[in-house]
Amino acid sequence: MTSAIEERLADLGVTLPEAPAPAANYVPFVKLGEMVHISGQISGDENGLITGKLGESMSVEEGAKAARACAIALLAQLKSACGGDIDRLVRVVKLTGFVNSTPDFIEQPDVINGASDFLIEALGDAGRHARAAVSVASLPKGVAVEIDGLFQIA
Amino acid sequence: MTSAIEERLADLGVTLPEAPAPAANYVPFVKLGEMVHISGQISGDENGLITGKLGESMSVEEGAKAARACAIALLAQLKSACGGDIDRLVRVVKLTGFVNSTPDFIEQPDVINGASDFLIEALGDAGRHARAAVSVASLPKGVAVEIDGLFQIA
Amino acid sequence: MTSAIEERLADLGVTLPEAPAPAANYVPFVKLGEMVHISGQISGDENGLITGKLGESMSVEEGAKAARACAIALLAQLKSACGGDIDRLVRVVKLTGFVNSTPDFIEQPDVINGASDFLIEALGDAGRHARAAVSVASLPKGVAVEIDGLFQIA
Repeated sequence: MTSAIEERLADLGVTLPEAPAPAANYVPFVKLGEMVHISGQISGDENGLITGKLGESMSVEEGAKAARACAIALLAQLKSACGGDIDRLVRVVKLTGFVNSTPDFIEQPDVINGASDFLIEALGDAGRHARAAVSVASLPKGVAVEIDGLFQIA
Repeated sequence: MTSAIEERLADLGVTLPEAPAPAANYVPFVKLGEMVHISGQISGDENGLITGKLGESMSVEEGAKAARACAIALLAQLKSACGGDIDRLVRVVKLTGFVNSTPDFIEQPDVINGASDFLIEALGDAGRHARAAVSVASLPKGVAVEIDGLFQIA
Repeated sequence: MTSAIEERLADLGVTLPEAPAPAANYVPFVKLGEMVHISGQISGDENGLITGKLGESMSVEEGAKAARACAIALLAQLKSACGGDIDRLVRVVKLTGFVNSTPDFIEQPDVINGASDFLIEALGDAGRHARAAVSVASLPKGVAVEIDGLFQIA
């Protein structure tokens, strides 16, 4: 089975990993009819967690890369929620992006754009989403970014 | 076309602005059937952004005004989501209010009341919503308040 | 009328309190068809509010107890949303857990587990939920934890 979305991801140099297991006693997603609620995904990749605090130990560009990693983890969970067939995706509905930053950091949109730009690049119009982007005091395990998401599938 | 809600807003001295454009690569709202998910609206008005940090550079009253400005921006987006006819609003379902504050500020409810009180004043029972109100480390561009929302329309 | 869920809660030593009134001008929940959106519940019990800041004045164990108290308050609101019959619960869909912490605290999952573990212990598979867990700069009245939730009912 060829997935159009996974081919497009491959063009972008992205292979979806196995959907990461939750860090605690909850589930990675809940599917209710067409809607999939995906738990907050923390920034990490094949080299491990992406930790850091924006405004202190990390540049905006590095933060945007961390946000992109969260988006990839969201798609990995979505694929799992779709029983392996991510082409069932209809729409990315809403993301909430939490940035680990100092109290004077004000470039949250540029950080979370790492996720938003990637989703639109990978998914086209289906990737266009509503979102909120805020800075939080801290994040699990010291990661730089956490993003949760609501998706619509067929 | 006369809008009952816009007449009521006019009584309160409020004219809905053009729906503000997103600060980055996402969309201001996603409509799914009856539900409208609106992106986080940052505090601002005709004079520009309302910036500041509660507990430091801004009073609770000023914070409440900033929250009210977010609510007006949410209604402007809602009107746009309704194709211009905001009277299609059925219910404000849920708001999440993010307050830019110091770590010892504890009057988040009084700040976000600036939005909640306004919505109930403007919309009556249709304005009664569930909500969460929390303080965040910082917000985009240094604004005082950001609020996202879920709305039901006909 | 005997409630299976309330019997199970009694086994765990929990009696649902009257649903707490909101701290401000909003409603504790909005019900839309099968979905119940419950406002952020702040940590507190029969002895009053549970205040404190993780990483400073409170241990992870105390934080987890505060999160458990939020989960109990969520169930009290849910019972109210069900017209008193909490056995109409189908599924806990999504929690967002906000932890009041210092900027260097990184054990948010262990804190919010106080809520997640309790819900699964009390409700079984119906208690398994998606979630996000983040640290915020501060919370209303200085409470340690605030959690909002989305529930499905029959």
